[in-house]
Amino acid sequence: MNIHELIAELREPAVSKIVLLVADGLGGLPLEPGGKTELETARTPNLDRCAKDGVCGLSIPVLPGITPGSGPGHLGLFGYDPLQYRIGRGILEALGINFHVTSKDVAVRGNFCTLDANGKITDRRAGRPATDRCIAMVQKMRLIRIPGVEIFVEPVKEHRFVIVFRGEDLGDAVNDTDPQATGVPPLPASGHDAASKKTADFVNQFFVQASNVLKSDAPTNGVTLRGFARYPKIGTMQEVYGLKAAALAIYPMYKGLARLVGMDVLDAGSTLNDQVATLKKVWGQYDFFFMHYKYTDSTGEDGNFPAKVDMIEKLDAVIPNILELKPDVFIVTGDHSTPSKMQSHSFHPVPTLLRAEHCRTDAVTEFSESACLHGGLGQFQAMHLMLLAMAHAGRLGKYGA
Amino acid sequence: MNIHELIAELREPAVSKIVLLVADGLGGLPLEPGGKTELETARTPNLDRCAKDGVCGLSIPVLPGITPGSGPGHLGLFGYDPLQYRIGRGILEALGINFHVTSKDVAVRGNFCTLDANGKITDRRAGRPATDRCIAMVQKMRLIRIPGVEIFVEPVKEHRFVIVFRGEDLGDAVNDTDPQATGVPPLPASGHDAASKKTADFVNQFFVQASNVLKSDAPTNGVTLRGFARYPKIGTMQEVYGLKAAALAIYPMYKGLARLVGMDVLDAGSTLNDQVATLKKVWGQYDFFFMHYKYTDSTGEDGNFPAKVDMIEKLDAVIPNILELKPDVFIVTGDHSTPSKMQSHSFHPVPTLLRAEHCRTDAVTEFSESACLHGGLGQFQAMHLMLLAMAHAGRLGKYGA
Repeated sequence: MNIHELIAELREPAVSKIVLLVADGLGGLPLEPGGKTELETARTPNLDRCAKDGVCGLSIPVLPGITPGSGPGHLGLFGYDPLQYRIGRGILEALGINFHVTSKDVAVRGNFCTLDANGKITDRRAGRPATDRCIAMVQKMRLIRIPGVEIFVEPVKEHRFVIVFRGEDLGDAVNDTDPQATGVPPLPASGHDAASKKTADFVNQFFVQASNVLKSDAPTNGVTLRGFARYPKIGTMQEVYGLKAAALAIYPMYKGLARLVGMDVLDAGSTLNDQVATLKKVWGQYDFFFMHYKYTDSTGEDGNFPAKVDMIEKLDAVIPNILELKPDVFIVTGDHSTPSKMQSHSFHPVPTLLRAEHCRTDAVTEFSESACLHGGLGQFQAMHLMLLAMAHAGRLGKYGA
Repeated sequence: MNIHELIAELREPAVSKIVLLVADGLGGLPLEPGGKTELETARTPNLDRCAKDGVCGLSIPVLPGITPGSGPGHLGLFGYDPLQYRIGRGILEALGINFHVTSKDVAVRGNFCTLDANGKITDRRAGRPATDRCIAMVQKMRLIRIPGVEIFVEPVKEHRFVIVFRGEDLGDAVNDTDPQATGVPPLPASGHDAASKKTADFVNQFFVQASNVLKSDAPTNGVTLRGFARYPKIGTMQEVYGLKAAALAIYPMYKGLARLVGMDVLDAGSTLNDQVATLKKVWGQYDFFFMHYKYTDSTGEDGNFPAKVDMIEKLDAVIPNILELKPDVFIVTGDHSTPSKMQSHSFHPVPTLLRAEHCRTDAVTEFSESACLHGGLGQFQAMHLMLLAMAHAGRLGKYGA
C-alpha cells in the first residue's frame, strides 16, 4: 500500500490548521571546518523558541546524497514521493513563468540558436540575445497556426522560451530536437508511441514554420527543443489529505508547484510582510498554508554567506506574527540546503522544526543544523513530513484495530 | 528481495534464546511542556541497568505519524511489515475472543440491531443490550445450519458478536451489510469474485434464518455484519526465522496475534508473576519468548498518568527474574505509544532496549524516551527489530561473500 492510499484510509476531518513555512535552501555549511553555518550564525530568537517548544529533526529531501531541484524538493515536502512523481523540464519551465498548464498540455523548453545557410547550428544559444529580443522572436512565433493543436509560445529569458502544445491525447515520449552539438542541424522530432507520434508531428510542423518566420533574424534564426513533458497525473492536497490548501508564494515557480498539487494560489504580494498579512486575511478560509521564502536560497546561490544570515534573521522576525494566529501545527523547514560555500543546491539534510500541542519535545533549544541532529524527529524523509503534520493536527485515525 | 526472503537465505541454527517483552503502549508524553513522560517519571532501576548494559533506540511502529492498532503494532514487532500484512476486523475480533481461526475461515464482526415491522433499522446497536442478552441471542443463532459451510457464532460484549464461516474456498471480498444508517434495512451481501460470492450466498442465507430465530426478540431482533476477513496468509515464526516461539500473554487479543504467526500460546496465568513463572518453566523448550504486558496501555488509555507510572514500576520489578534465565537477547519495547495525556494510542516512537553480548553499547544509562533518542539503535522501523534480535542471537549469517 502506498502512503497516499494509507492516508485516504486513515484521514479524519478536523478543524485544525497547519502552516508549512519553507525557507528555500535553508540548510548550509560553515565556511571553515569547525565554523558555524548560516543558520547557526544568524540570531534567531523566535525560531529558537519554536525549536524549544517543538520537536526538531533533519529532513532528507529525496535520499541521502541526492541534491534536489525545486520541483522534487517541494513535492517531497508536500508528501509526494519525489522518485515516483516526476515533473518534466518542460512543465517546470512553464510553471516557472506562471503559465497555467492543464492536463491536455505537453510543455517543452525552447532555445534560440543560430543556423548557417545549410541549416546547421553554429551557436546553440544564439549569442545569448537580450531578453527583449527573445520576446520579439516569441511574438513572431505566436503567429504560427497548426490545425488540431493549440500552441502557446512564452518568452523566458535571453535565449530561452517555452512552448506548450495543447490538444487531445498528446504524448510526451518525444526526443529532444537539441543535438547538444554545433555543426549539425536540429534533430527531427519522433514519438515513441502513438500519442507521442502525434505530438512529434505537430513539433515538426512547428519547426518548419518557425524556421520560416525567423529566417531573416540571425543570430536568432533557429530553435531547438528539449524536455517534452506532460502535466503529471497527481492528486490534489484536497484529494490526498482532505485539506483545503492555500499557497502564499511570491515567485512563479513555487506558485506553479503549489498549483500542481491543487492549492489555491493567492496573491500574496511581494514581501514577507505582505505574505504574513495575506495569511492573516485568509486564515479562516483554509486548513493548510504553504508559505514560501526565496531569499535563503538565492543568497546561498550567490555565495553570499552574510546575506543569507541576514535573510534568515529577517525571516525570524516575522515568526511571532505567524504564531499570533495560533496554528495547530507550525513547521519550518527547507526544500533542500543551499550552502553559500557551494553556491548551489546541495544534498545535505535540512533543519526542520514542528511545533504542536502533542509533539514530544526534545532537548533542542535552538534552530540549527547541529541542534536538529539531536532532535526528536531524527533524520527523516521529507515525504513523511506531511504524515507528521497530519498526525499532529489530529487528522489521522488509527491504522488497524 | 523482501526481508523474509533475506532471512530465509541467511538464517543459521543456534542454541540462543530471545525474550521480547512488549509493554503495550509504553511510550508517553509529559503532561506539561518540559515535563517528564510516564517512563521518565517511573523509578526503573532494573530497566535503566539494562539500558546501560545494552543498546537503545526508538521504534517507529509503521511510519512516522501513523498510529497503529494492536494488530499492526505487534505484527511489526514480530517482523512482519504491517503495511503488507493486514489483518481484517473480523479476524481481529475473533482473535480478541480467543477463537481459534483457521485458514478455511472468513470471520466477520456482527452487531445486534433493532428492526421495525418493515425490516428497517431503528437502532444500530439494539439499545446496547446487556452482555447476558447478547449471549442468549447468540445461543439462538447457533442453531442455524446451512449446508456446505460450518458456522460459529460467538458473543463478544453488549451488541457485539463474531461469526466465523468455515468452508472450502471462501472469499472475503464481501460488502458490509451494516448500512451505517437507520431507517433502511440491512444491506444484502454480495461478493466481488467467485469465492466471495460463495461466502455472500451463505451470509444471505444466514441472515434469513437469523431474522427468523430472532423475530420476537426486539430490540435485539436483527443483525448487521461488517469487516469480512479471511485468515491472512502469513508465514509462522518457525518458517520465517526457524524459531520455536512461545507466547506468554494474558489477554485474548495478544494470544490471538501470537497464534497468527504460529507461536505456541501457553497458559501464562493471570499476573506478571504468573507469566515469569511460566517463562521459567518452559525455558528449555523454546528459542523465542513473547511476553505481553497490557497495563502500560490500559492506564494510558484511561488517562491515568500516575497509574501508568506505577504499572511501569511493577514491570521493572520483575526484570531481574527474567534476567536470571540469562537470555542471549533481551528486548523491551512497546507496540506503540499510549500517552496518558492523549488517552489513546499515538504515533510517537517507542522506547526500546536490546541487551545482548555483542550489542554495541551507547551512552544511554536510563530507559526513557529522551535517553533512547540518543541510543545506538537510532530511530528504526519496528519491523526491523527482529533482524536485530536474530543478529544479536547469532542466528543470521553473512549476506553475500
